[in-house]
Amino acid sequence: MLKVSKFGGSSLATLERLNNVLRIVKEDKRRKIVVVSAPGKGFCSEEKTTDFLRKVFKINDEKEKEQSLNFLARKFAEYSEDESIFAIAYNAFLACVNNEQAFISRGEYLTALVVAKKLGFVFKDALELIFFDGNGEVDRTKCRAAAEKTDIGDGVVVPGFYGADEQGKVRLFPRGGGDITGAVLSEAFGVAMYENFTDEEGVLSADPRIFAKAKTVKKLNYREIETLSRFGAKVVCPSVAKYLVGKDIPLVVRSSFSPSSRFTLVSEAACGGKDKPKAVAGKFALKISVKLKIGGLSNIFIALSKLFTFLGDPLALYLSTNDLVFYIDEDNSKIPEAIQALRSSSDFFITAEDGFFVLSLVGSFSQTFARQISYRLNSSGIKVYCVLPYSDKLIYIVKKSHSAKAIINLANFINEADRG
Amino acid sequence: MLKVSKFGGSSLATLERLNNVLRIVKEDKRRKIVVVSAPGKGFCSEEKTTDFLRKVFKINDEKEKEQSLNFLARKFAEYSEDESIFAIAYNAFLACVNNEQAFISRGEYLTALVVAKKLGFVFKDALELIFFDGNGEVDRTKCRAAAEKTDIGDGVVVPGFYGADEQGKVRLFPRGGGDITGAVLSEAFGVAMYENFTDEEGVLSADPRIFAKAKTVKKLNYREIETLSRFGAKVVCPSVAKYLVGKDIPLVVRSSFSPSSRFTLVSEAACGGKDKPKAVAGKFALKISVKLKIGGLSNIFIALSKLFTFLGDPLALYLSTNDLVFYIDEDNSKIPEAIQALRSSSDFFITAEDGFFVLSLVGSFSQTFARQISYRLNSSGIKVYCVLPYSDKLIYIVKKSHSAKAIINLANFINEADRG
Repeated sequence: MLKVSKFGGSSLATLERLNNVLRIVKEDKRRKIVVVSAPGKGFCSEEKTTDFLRKVFKINDEKEKEQSLNFLARKFAEYSEDESIFAIAYNAFLACVNNEQAFISRGEYLTALVVAKKLGFVFKDALELIFFDGNGEVDRTKCRAAAEKTDIGDGVVVPGFYGADEQGKVRLFPRGGGDITGAVLSEAFGVAMYENFTDEEGVLSADPRIFAKAKTVKKLNYREIETLSRFGAKVVCPSVAKYLVGKDIPLVVRSSFSPSSRFTLVSEAACGGKDKPKAVAGKFALKISVKLKIGGLSNIFIALSKLFTFLGDPLALYLSTNDLVFYIDEDNSKIPEAIQALRSSSDFFITAEDGFFVLSLVGSFSQTFARQISYRLNSSGIKVYCVLPYSDKLIYIVKKSHSAKAIINLANFINEADRG
Repeated sequence: MLKVSKFGGSSLATLERLNNVLRIVKEDKRRKIVVVSAPGKGFCSEEKTTDFLRKVFKINDEKEKEQSLNFLARKFAEYSEDESIFAIAYNAFLACVNNEQAFISRGEYLTALVVAKKLGFVFKDALELIFFDGNGEVDRTKCRAAAEKTDIGDGVVVPGFYGADEQGKVRLFPRGGGDITGAVLSEAFGVAMYENFTDEEGVLSADPRIFAKAKTVKKLNYREIETLSRFGAKVVCPSVAKYLVGKDIPLVVRSSFSPSSRFTLVSEAACGGKDKPKAVAGKFALKISVKLKIGGLSNIFIALSKLFTFLGDPLALYLSTNDLVFYIDEDNSKIPEAIQALRSSSDFFITAEDGFFVLSLVGSFSQTFARQISYRLNSSGIKVYCVLPYSDKLIYIVKKSHSAKAIINLANFINEADRG
């Protein structure tokens, strides 16, 4: 029985926290595949190490750069409590000063090196286990083949956040990609569980910065965690679930600070009762309205396929006869280019409007229950523009300025339902 | 200045009504392109002539068939008040006894012949003016070329409902296709107006069988009439608008029984004021829920394109992360096959549920106004499951048993807004 145990940056930000992580790994013999992020805020600056490295890479002044590398190598030496790490770290940075992705990935690389040494595990570079294909997608077959040839022995530590492109060079995952490393390895090694250690006690019912009484959701299924993650819940990367669903590998999301207490179990089976709200998350969004000069919607699906491959999935979309509306994260940097492309067609008129908050309440909802919740929101004076009801989630589109009010209203409702 | 004037079956069902049509055409010198349907109910039976012809075609008994052809030819002779039509009609039917589409089209064919003769116009067969391409789509370029070569002279009468396939054989439009014939000819001849004569005084604000106080909508744009038509309003074929929109040919929908009174003008420009409901229509629908095992919605648009090319456009569709719901006319005969095809994929789970009514309220709607209307519906005890708001239409999905209640509520609202 093997587990992949992934530790996020905040769990590794200081020497004290690192020691805590070592304790957690040693506690359970099954924790033989350890994935680490680069240390979070507080390690070398008030920024996350990865963000700090991005800046250092861009330094042009030779002397200033050398000082920075020196500073970083020193931090890793202190972190490892092993002076020999200084030279290893310095040289690791120096070897990558001309390759931004590789340079940035040295945070994870060195952290894995340190953790492996302290645990007495084998350091295993992600370049030997995580592979991308020519389209920048994870080559899962190749990852599986590499896993099969890997002797785990007493345990391995793998740096998160990157893998090898077709030329064997470092390619980074998107931000938060350490979660994906853990998921890919979980699938590749066919482990019994993927443990994701973070700074929260699992997945919370709502954003704790907005709703202090948010509680740990005990069970979620893959679809639910994908939705919450997609709607901005600070949990795991949205794409994690797709690596786990095929082999039904349970994902446990828990805190490294209080590892034995509350946690969230994500699996295929996990399911709440009838008419039960479980968690809520939301994102600020731009509304894009597309008016077809005249109908024939079936013709536009091909165009939509192209659009969303470029832009990323919309938070919500609806259409009828000759009208289409979709909501997209307002911080999506590709929006202007996408609108430009849409405007170039004379078949439709496009308008974009900001000021919306799209939220998703996951759980299970009969049609009557869904109507009750909508009624509750409306009665609280929250401007609900649109409700898209599904049996296991309700999507509400509300006025941006009502976002916190809506989250608090629904989070309170979740707590009430939990007691009731 | 030319007009295409199309007369529907009920406007031509009896000799008296035929004479009324002749009067209407003669009233306006611009009515030089006349399109006719086959006579409606009351001409040869309690069925529409087209439906009657479908049955006659299927008669196997030689003698019975001959009697039926005799009966039909006699009806057309009486209708034309010209005994020579008997032989022409009989032979026209006889020539098509082995070609169902051609046989069925003889209703329009003979009606056009009679009307042309009575008007002193030239009969022009649709086979010479309306052409389909290999995919069964109207070949608009070919239609335009044929129109350019046509000398209209004092006037022409064209049978509606059919055209020529690539082999020059009769191919029928879908039911109600006489409207399309008129629209195709309007575009091909580049006329100044397309007049569609029916048995209602234009487009009504609601189905008069449900709401007796329904009123004529004075102005609509192409998108609005397309939507109303698509949602079952008994007006013109949904696809009519696409032929008119490019050249901005105004469409006038009016009654042949009281042609000078109320009518609806459909054009590009036509637009109501701010926050104004204009008309409502709705259809009973099946709800199809598609749950993706895991997300990546952009991958499913290609599948949706295929699905709706086969099934026809949905009345409404919405999606978010890993969920998709669409509503389709419950009388769509292709639904079982489509669901079967969807079920064959292991990427998603499909459920189908009946008992819904999808209605569309067209007009202009600010977000606040839209919320007021939804509130009004909810307060009247109508179970609204979902609202899809657009700036020029609101789609409501309600419980099937609340359909009439919802239509009446909204139709009353339209009347109130009209007075207010």
